[in-house]
Amino acid sequence: MSEIKEITGGVCAAQGFRASGVHCGIRKNKSKKDLALIISDTRAAAAAVYTQNLVKGAPLLVTKQNIADGYASAIICNSGNANTCNANGVEIAEDMCKLVQQSAGIAADDVVVASTGVIGQPLNITPIEDGMESLVAGLAYDNSDAAAEAIMTTDTVKKSAAVEFTLGGKTCRLGGIAKGSGMIHPNMATMLVFVTTDADISPEMLQKALRNDILTSFNMVSVDGDTSTNDMVSVLANGQAGNAAITTENEDYDTFCKALHTVTVKLCRMIAGDGEGATKLLTCKVNGAKTEKDAKIAAKSVICSSLLKAAMFGADANWGRVLCALGYSGADLDVRKVDVSFASAKGRIDVCKNGAGIAFSEEIAKEILLEQEIEILIGLNDGANSAEAWGCDLTYDYVKINGDYRT
Amino acid sequence: MSEIKEITGGVCAAQGFRASGVHCGIRKNKSKKDLALIISDTRAAAAAVYTQNLVKGAPLLVTKQNIADGYASAIICNSGNANTCNANGVEIAEDMCKLVQQSAGIAADDVVVASTGVIGQPLNITPIEDGMESLVAGLAYDNSDAAAEAIMTTDTVKKSAAVEFTLGGKTCRLGGIAKGSGMIHPNMATMLVFVTTDADISPEMLQKALRNDILTSFNMVSVDGDTSTNDMVSVLANGQAGNAAITTENEDYDTFCKALHTVTVKLCRMIAGDGEGATKLLTCKVNGAKTEKDAKIAAKSVICSSLLKAAMFGADANWGRVLCALGYSGADLDVRKVDVSFASAKGRIDVCKNGAGIAFSEEIAKEILLEQEIEILIGLNDGANSAEAWGCDLTYDYVKINGDYRT
Repeated sequence: MSEIKEITGGVCAAQGFRASGVHCGIRKNKSKKDLALIISDTRAAAAAVYTQNLVKGAPLLVTKQNIADGYASAIICNSGNANTCNANGVEIAEDMCKLVQQSAGIAADDVVVASTGVIGQPLNITPIEDGMESLVAGLAYDNSDAAAEAIMTTDTVKKSAAVEFTLGGKTCRLGGIAKGSGMIHPNMATMLVFVTTDADISPEMLQKALRNDILTSFNMVSVDGDTSTNDMVSVLANGQAGNAAITTENEDYDTFCKALHTVTVKLCRMIAGDGEGATKLLTCKVNGAKTEKDAKIAAKSVICSSLLKAAMFGADANWGRVLCALGYSGADLDVRKVDVSFASAKGRIDVCKNGAGIAFSEEIAKEILLEQEIEILIGLNDGANSAEAWGCDLTYDYVKINGDYRT
Repeated sequence: MSEIKEITGGVCAAQGFRASGVHCGIRKNKSKKDLALIISDTRAAAAAVYTQNLVKGAPLLVTKQNIADGYASAIICNSGNANTCNANGVEIAEDMCKLVQQSAGIAADDVVVASTGVIGQPLNITPIEDGMESLVAGLAYDNSDAAAEAIMTTDTVKKSAAVEFTLGGKTCRLGGIAKGSGMIHPNMATMLVFVTTDADISPEMLQKALRNDILTSFNMVSVDGDTSTNDMVSVLANGQAGNAAITTENEDYDTFCKALHTVTVKLCRMIAGDGEGATKLLTCKVNGAKTEKDAKIAAKSVICSSLLKAAMFGADANWGRVLCALGYSGADLDVRKVDVSFASAKGRIDVCKNGAGIAFSEEIAKEILLEQEIEILIGLNDGANSAEAWGCDLTYDYVKINGDYRT
């Protein structure tokens, strides 16, 4: 299998993709971009997964319809307003697609449309109309960062990742951008993530690769336990790399999946580490589970525990909260066999063995937990399955950000 | 059915129950009581429900064994240490029962034993041994508050409730004390609650009444989504009221259940309102659900949303987060039919109708939401079932309390 090499370029890393991002006026703050556009030079195979929340943002409904034939050529996304729970939501989302057609010559039904921001406030189309000219003028093959910036809400950093790999001797690239931060607890879907690739792959195989990928990437992330109404990951594959089209689960498909997973996991870690108010990225690694499902449930439960998240903020090695979260997770496990350790760049410390505490240096534990990237290592000693989940600490700033998000 | 009248007295409201609470030294802070004892003058029917967390505090295992025959005479409970995930936990819990036998003449296997506090640190029996003499000396028929105080952890107020009612012309009383605050998300059980009554009721009917009660009381409370390892509610019924013993589901049983529910719901509201760091009690009332199960799932999901909890802290009428929490709850509902209002002592304001926002005065909404007791009223308009759940806001102090709980 081909080596997967990390590169720069985000959604413009792959050949034939231009991106742009501008401030059009949905947000009052003029220094914050709020409208993004990504365009493929040629029609691309398209795949997407959506939130399982019964309340679905109007843009998701329109996107689903537009890529029902397996193809799309453009992505438009605004921040500052989720266009969700609005009576005219679908109409506005369709208008956004029509604006792409008018300004960039892409058929309206070949557009992936997304919105992110506050729920339940009507989205005014006028600033988007007004902003289209400069948005299209800004399209460039090296402008992924502008789009990544334009889709941010309470995110504090742009989230971007890309890789290079070969399929049948042809160099391919795959890259993505993401927005995360709050209302992050994906369920069979995720926050907003846009991935582009120049690999040639059929819509069916692209959808299969994506649907499989999220089970161990975005579905294993939680910032606050709230599954958003507007979660979506979409992938466009325009085939410009010239590889033999992937149409079955062959070796090229495996390589493609590995490349995709490298990018999605990187974006997951960025989303978790930049959770609202977060000061730390938490990674929970569960080993020795009876089944993969048990491993996943256990890892996710630990990552979601408010008590553990607050303890991590305080750099407190309170492993009892890890045991507690395992105990109520619903995973099939024997608490008398559980081992727990904490690790970071400063080292690793064992704190619980066979479900009971062991003597450890609080001083060393503190030093390890004061780092920004923390691993919570759990051995269930009950099987051969493992899983990994990502989250963040719970901080004063999470409360501050969400105490008056609308005002 | 008899009227249910609220009275004072907590666990000493019922005839023949004495209580006591002292500082014995488990906690370093000498002004904080840490050991409680409740004794019935005569052997009482006993019932209990326990946490469904796979990690169970050792005291729960010992209590379960001790009341397997349906009877008990005393309750001993320490705070400051949960006696959970300790190798010698069961031994220590049994030793606590033996100390009650030695000091108060109650058979060790007639003792309900409980512990609450940090998980995974060995519980030293010595301070408890040393404290037994003063604990027993303090037993009195009007000393419920001392016991209520001794079981508190991060609670900021004592939690106590009692009622008077009649069964077949005989005056009966039923009262309880509780500790709550953090790691509160009961699942088929609850935080620590001790209820006493002088009503005569068989152990079987008492267990049935309790098991049924918690489904609409403690199981509808959440402070932080973390189901504790040490949750327990236990009821002692010593029959001293002299009523005809309740042995079937007759009218007296219904009255007894109603009395029990009055006390448990009051304790629920106290536990939710005094959640760690909380400034507000939130009550979510769901009406018009297809089934009671759907109503409960919906109400609990809203109460558990970190985003909504933070919005309530900020007095922000962010109803989109209510819709979002309903949407991912798993309840069977039609989002296009959902109505949402907020209410408090300052009035009521409608904010969402048929799943979409309606115009409302942010000023009036703010005034309503600045109160300490907030109701989130949800109409699903899809059936005739309702449910109520209790929770609290998410505040800076929750993070502060849990950032360094152990140190």
